[in-house]
Amino acid sequence: MIGSEIDKLIISIAKLPGLGRRSAQRIALHLLKQKDKSLHMLVEALQEANKKIVNCEICGNIDTLNPCSICQDKKRDSKTICIVEDISDLWALERTGFYKGLYHVLGGVLSAIDGVGIEDLRIDKLIKRLDKKKIKEIILALSTTTEGQTTSHVITDKIETFGIEVTRLAQGLPIGGEVHYLDENTLNTAFQSRKKII
Amino acid sequence: MIGSEIDKLIISIAKLPGLGRRSAQRIALHLLKQKDKSLHMLVEALQEANKKIVNCEICGNIDTLNPCSICQDKKRDSKTICIVEDISDLWALERTGFYKGLYHVLGGVLSAIDGVGIEDLRIDKLIKRLDKKKIKEIILALSTTTEGQTTSHVITDKIETFGIEVTRLAQGLPIGGEVHYLDENTLNTAFQSRKKII
Repeated sequence: MIGSEIDKLIISIAKLPGLGRRSAQRIALHLLKQKDKSLHMLVEALQEANKKIVNCEICGNIDTLNPCSICQDKKRDSKTICIVEDISDLWALERTGFYKGLYHVLGGVLSAIDGVGIEDLRIDKLIKRLDKKKIKEIILALSTTTEGQTTSHVITDKIETFGIEVTRLAQGLPIGGEVHYLDENTLNTAFQSRKKII
Repeated sequence: MIGSEIDKLIISIAKLPGLGRRSAQRIALHLLKQKDKSLHMLVEALQEANKKIVNCEICGNIDTLNPCSICQDKKRDSKTICIVEDISDLWALERTGFYKGLYHVLGGVLSAIDGVGIEDLRIDKLIKRLDKKKIKEIILALSTTTEGQTTSHVITDKIETFGIEVTRLAQGLPIGGEVHYLDENTLNTAFQSRKKII
């Protein structure tokens, strides 16, 4: 009973991550009620982004520049590369603003279930980067899931021959986290890695 | 640090109902990673919807037709009009499929806080509809919030002179609802309107 164009729009929106049929319907209605404002603005932003945004051939970030503004930034420490799963992780780290080195976006983690192998990740591009430039430290900032840790191991193995220092992010209690809400694995890790205060 | 075109896209998406900065970022990334698929499909669906979807001048529904397919449907009972706040309410009722009459979309409810007055709703258009056609029953399907109930009262007052039957949806326990989770108002209403079984 809903017109086919409305339905097509709802289906397109519902395919976006985190949205279901209900929220897609709500968004479609919002857009169609204010065609001149919201709908036009969104279409313009999408087309503009489509035209101007490209992948950085070095680190895999997206930007209007290629190489991206982070890779081109002379002020950043080009001897340190932080390896992240996804662009969203890069953004999360950039938001904190304390890291001043470069990045390398893998584009996922190894996963037998999802059929993601080494060739699907940007690991070979990382090796080529290490060949060309003198890197001092590689920081592994991958998820602490089984897949993330497997990926960390595989990368560490591949880098070993380069004689570069490899580190990973600390594991323990998240800041603001309440102990009784945390899972056993986190608590166990936090216990094993406890730090001396006095 | 995020490129300005990416940022503009994220801001446009974050303005959609139910989405915040985080979910907008996730959606933007998803679209930009699969430009040829998702982004194009979405832009096309939006443009198509923008071109073809119009408001029904009779009931306020949106459709590719004007008057909409519900208003034009000869099989529907044109003597009954169900008054709803929003097009999403109309869709919800249509999904159930049991109602075979016509609709009238108000476009909101009266609200002093949000500055919505009688002239902002499609009440005058409803009165004109009643003038022209012989209507037997008006069903008020508005929210059971204070605003919804105030709006129901105002509409009832305006219709009174037409000598048309006015009904409202039953109020009580939602199906599948557990008694101990329900608020006092609902329980009170359900108690007062209890039905004799034997």
